[in-house]
Amino acid sequence: MSVAESAVIVKSIDYPEPFCELVRQLRRLPSVGPRSAERMALWLTTSADARPDLLAGALVDAAQRISKCGRCGFFAVGDLCEICADAGRSGREICVVETATDILPIERTGIFRGSYHALGGRLAPLDNVGPEDLRIGTLLTRVSAEGATEVILALSADVEGEATANYLSDVLRVTGVPVTRIAQGLPAGGGLEHADQLTLQRAMTGRRSVGA
Amino acid sequence: MSVAESAVIVKSIDYPEPFCELVRQLRRLPSVGPRSAERMALWLTTSADARPDLLAGALVDAAQRISKCGRCGFFAVGDLCEICADAGRSGREICVVETATDILPIERTGIFRGSYHALGGRLAPLDNVGPEDLRIGTLLTRVSAEGATEVILALSADVEGEATANYLSDVLRVTGVPVTRIAQGLPAGGGLEHADQLTLQRAMTGRRSVGA
Repeated sequence: MSVAESAVIVKSIDYPEPFCELVRQLRRLPSVGPRSAERMALWLTTSADARPDLLAGALVDAAQRISKCGRCGFFAVGDLCEICADAGRSGREICVVETATDILPIERTGIFRGSYHALGGRLAPLDNVGPEDLRIGTLLTRVSAEGATEVILALSADVEGEATANYLSDVLRVTGVPVTRIAQGLPAGGGLEHADQLTLQRAMTGRRSVGA
Repeated sequence: MSVAESAVIVKSIDYPEPFCELVRQLRRLPSVGPRSAERMALWLTTSADARPDLLAGALVDAAQRISKCGRCGFFAVGDLCEICADAGRSGREICVVETATDILPIERTGIFRGSYHALGGRLAPLDNVGPEDLRIGTLLTRVSAEGATEVILALSADVEGEATANYLSDVLRVTGVPVTRIAQGLPAGGGLEHADQLTLQRAMTGRRSVGA
């Protein structure tokens, strides 16, 4: 192999380092692969209307200004989130969810007018997540201090969600406040032929009377 | 409809404004839809190892430091790109490509040791792209000034690529430098049954003698 040929192999040309660093950072985003990251970086550095400064500014702004609501744990700018700061929300029901990201899907249904409480996770002994890692103490404090009329558990319908629901109903028993859990059954639009055995079993168990 | 019900519809809760702005900016990235943008923003604002400051820094850095190579048009930090600044590249062949992003795929093959020249597009009368919009004048200057021994046209194998190649071979004729065009034919691994008529026609036209 001649000197020139070996030089070809040793020194491979790539994009400049700032470009490669941008690709590396974009790749860390969820569900962005190497090809997507390169395409995004090319667009950001070559397209006239890409305006990477706007994205950079939005990232810095979001990181600096968004915090957790001191009461419910939802995203907030300031101490309280938009939901907790809303004086028009009269309900004294507290809807308990696993993470703050579970709040908006419920809120978008428009059916609930109480307040939320994000636990910050759920009981998962295998991942070393115990009751002391969740916001259970602040939940108990809120139930008493706010004179809650109902605690609604809107937790996942899986094993860890079950365990968390059981634990919470136990510790909430002393408060005397009614504890409910959102229904499990057929999803809207779902036919019986697509429902698994456990879903059907829960749908049967949770059946409600219809008509007069 | 009661007052409470109408209030639900009028005032819908959403993420705080800095979060929504981040989602809007992420949505502008190529092939990022509303759901992906929200998932990215959630990860960026809630995950402990997201480090949005690193992505913001990479964006600013790329925008400020990456420029176009004054000679070939490839991405550069400084006046010349890594390829043009490489004194070890001896070739006096100039490989003409449409855009700077076409350079790296050729470079990665490791087969070419000359320099590149990005036109910044291709002739497209319907899109109002004429010869004066492309870096053709600088190509002619380079061919003379650098004593080029060959101009290789590595342009797309479509109508606009054809038109651009024909135009360039016309204007380069006065320089007396040989002009070649990269081969068209079957792609590597492509069977005849998958080749379209035009590809087969060009593969036949471009046939080469084999053996001794």
